Amino acid sequence: MITLLSDFGSASPYPAEMKLVLAAHTDAVLIDITHDVPPHDVRAGAYLLRAVARQSPAGTVHLAVVDPGVGTGRRALIVQSGGQCFVGPDNGLMLPAARRVGAPRAFIIADNALPRGIRSSTFHGRDLFAPAAAQLARGTPPEVLGVPAPEVVDLDLGAGRREDRTLVGTVVYVDPFGNIVTSIPADLLPPPGQRVEVQVGSRRTRGTVRSTYGEAARGTLVVVPGSDASVELAVREGRAARRLRVRSGTVIRIRELLPRPRLTSRRHG
Amino acid sequence: MITLLSDFGSASPYPAEMKLVLAAHTDAVLIDITHDVPPHDVRAGAYLLRAVARQSPAGTVHLAVVDPGVGTGRRALIVQSGGQCFVGPDNGLMLPAARRVGAPRAFIIADNALPRGIRSSTFHGRDLFAPAAAQLARGTPPEVLGVPAPEVVDLDLGAGRREDRTLVGTVVYVDPFGNIVTSIPADLLPPPGQRVEVQVGSRRTRGTVRSTYGEAARGTLVVVPGSDASVELAVREGRAARRLRVRSGTVIRIRELLPRPRLTSRRHG
Amino acid sequence: MITLLSDFGSASPYPAEMKLVLAAHTDAVLIDITHDVPPHDVRAGAYLLRAVARQSPAGTVHLAVVDPGVGTGRRALIVQSGGQCFVGPDNGLMLPAARRVGAPRAFIIADNALPRGIRSSTFHGRDLFAPAAAQLARGTPPEVLGVPAPEVVDLDLGAGRREDRTLVGTVVYVDPFGNIVTSIPADLLPPPGQRVEVQVGSRRTRGTVRSTYGEAARGTLVVVPGSDASVELAVREGRAARRLRVRSGTVIRIRELLPRPRLTSRRHG
Repeated sequence: MITLLSDFGSASPYPAEMKLVLAAHTDAVLIDITHDVPPHDVRAGAYLLRAVARQSPAGTVHLAVVDPGVGTGRRALIVQSGGQCFVGPDNGLMLPAARRVGAPRAFIIADNALPRGIRSSTFHGRDLFAPAAAQLARGTPPEVLGVPAPEVVDLDLGAGRREDRTLVGTVVYVDPFGNIVTSIPADLLPPPGQRVEVQVGSRRTRGTVRSTYGEAARGTLVVVPGSDASVELAVREGRAARRLRVRSGTVIRIRELLPRPRLTSRRHG
Repeated sequence: MITLLSDFGSASPYPAEMKLVLAAHTDAVLIDITHDVPPHDVRAGAYLLRAVARQSPAGTVHLAVVDPGVGTGRRALIVQSGGQCFVGPDNGLMLPAARRVGAPRAFIIADNALPRGIRSSTFHGRDLFAPAAAQLARGTPPEVLGVPAPEVVDLDLGAGRREDRTLVGTVVYVDPFGNIVTSIPADLLPPPGQRVEVQVGSRRTRGTVRSTYGEAARGTLVVVPGSDASVELAVREGRAARRLRVRSGTVIRIRELLPRPRLTSRRHG
Repeated sequence: MITLLSDFGSASPYPAEMKLVLAAHTDAVLIDITHDVPPHDVRAGAYLLRAVARQSPAGTVHLAVVDPGVGTGRRALIVQSGGQCFVGPDNGLMLPAARRVGAPRAFIIADNALPRGIRSSTFHGRDLFAPAAAQLARGTPPEVLGVPAPEVVDLDLGAGRREDRTLVGTVVYVDPFGNIVTSIPADLLPPPGQRVEVQVGSRRTRGTVRSTYGEAARGTLVVVPGSDASVELAVREGRAARRLRVRSGTVIRIRELLPRPRLTSRRHG
């Protein structure tokens, strides 16, 4: 199985050109992750790849190309981890995924390891990474295609933490529904029903922890354990990212609210 | 053969996550219908699924997820009809398709019928429906995966009818060309060449029945028998939905115009 | 291997309907080029098909449908060239690709050569071209499916030429990054480092020939040999098409600038 991820655009011919190379050299099943990563957004690509790698069986090869530095000195890598292989540029794109599934070992693809075909200086996805991915899918070990990389460019999608009654993290992805995926692990979340205040910069919005989107009233903000085991924020049938005005990298604080005192007890107090 | 339909967005990782589950359990051919159903638009999804099911051979499994109620009490269904199976939420999404191809029988997916893997409360497409679809594609009968559903949520895409010289129906889909697909069966259409007046609310626009788009002059409104055996309205190299200002659910009336009397005969009258 | 290209839109059911027909009749691998060709833009479709055909192995069948004239007198063609087959409308769409890979021979698909199924007058992609493509993928020779076409509609994507120190060509495609693909062959390009002035209408913009995008400073215009062996213009992490205000068909002139005389030599001059 080979997955494909790029920022080439699904309206461009480039994904098909990569698939033709793959299909010519292997009969592995080809599964597109997406080709609509925002152009040059290595961070978004890294998140998407990590989400899918977590679900992928051993033996999967991931061909990932978000590569603003194509044709420069940046190196071409194979990263092996947890029985999966990742092929793409040395710009951090593959590291969060590789770390999620195991202990990464990186190899620099050797220029003479691949058959000589059309080789452009602007389209390594087709001319370099796809042939390498095809070889890996056929069972060639990474050691044959490259040499161990002493160090690689890393990328940190951020961690989340609890500070007293507040969860702190960053936005790692806004999905097509406008749902906000954060860097906060879902197991830090208080139980469903807990009222919270979400703070972005100086703006504060109230919401509730739920176990799923559908339990909320239309238009209300909910905080849920996401499908990626991360804390997500959503607005039922609305767009949370627009409501909270966040984007990838924005810091988010989720503070647990104390139960509101009853009015009757205030009178007696 | 397994088709996939969702509102997850082709830029999200979610379709690939479903396909990884399918590919891990079956070697059925996977065919995307689309993952760009407008978010939460069950009606649009139902139309698209119906259009494709009509073309699908017996044995096809359809995995369909437009599911605003994910994680709530809404049930997970398998609907069997005409030798095809549909897997998705109990919100009406699959019923128009199932009725189009046969006599539907519905089953509620039993929670213990599927292998226990990652199970989120927000992503049943990957964690519940995809494993069920894979089992069906491998030949497991729906009876083994669920229990007969006494009743299911239904959805009516609307019928069309003839009232004297007027066809009345609703818009069921606007395609990417801006062509309007209606609920009116194509066999109610008068023969090509007939002049008609199309009424939407109080606005009236003139057009002509044609057997195909290409016969019209650029910019003119045509009424044609669509590829789905429904009446379609189109503007040659333009956008009919914008011209008529309609969207899914809008009522449309198509009135046959009487032949215009010749000027010469009026003088003699 | 069968590739698919159309302007049907990836949000429409039409690509899946074609694939169901293909999958029912052949187990060839199906590779989408794109279904998001701008509606009715035969020229853009022709470019994309040519880019992919150049990479395709012998035996590949290309199903290509950008077909504003569907259902009119325009003929349905199979074009055989360089061991590949192209199936689609007789409007020029397939000719640039076919010429790129060999010496094209065209056949008009005979109406009685294909099995009689659902046959609409508005969706030849599904009802006529897809069945023909499936037959070709199964090894049926084009001669069996049609008769030689005495002449076909042609389409010229334009050539490029050198006039003294100026390269002249047209825009054939703007890719999703905003990069401009021209009709000028890359081997006419001066060596990397050469300063150039790009002229569009009366506007002039300076840039530099580079061997790849990544070598340029952010925001500067570069002229590179593209992955399609054509001259491309790009702005590093920007959109060249917006900067130069061009679109498909715009004439572009790239003039080599003479090396700037040094200020010191002027003083001595």
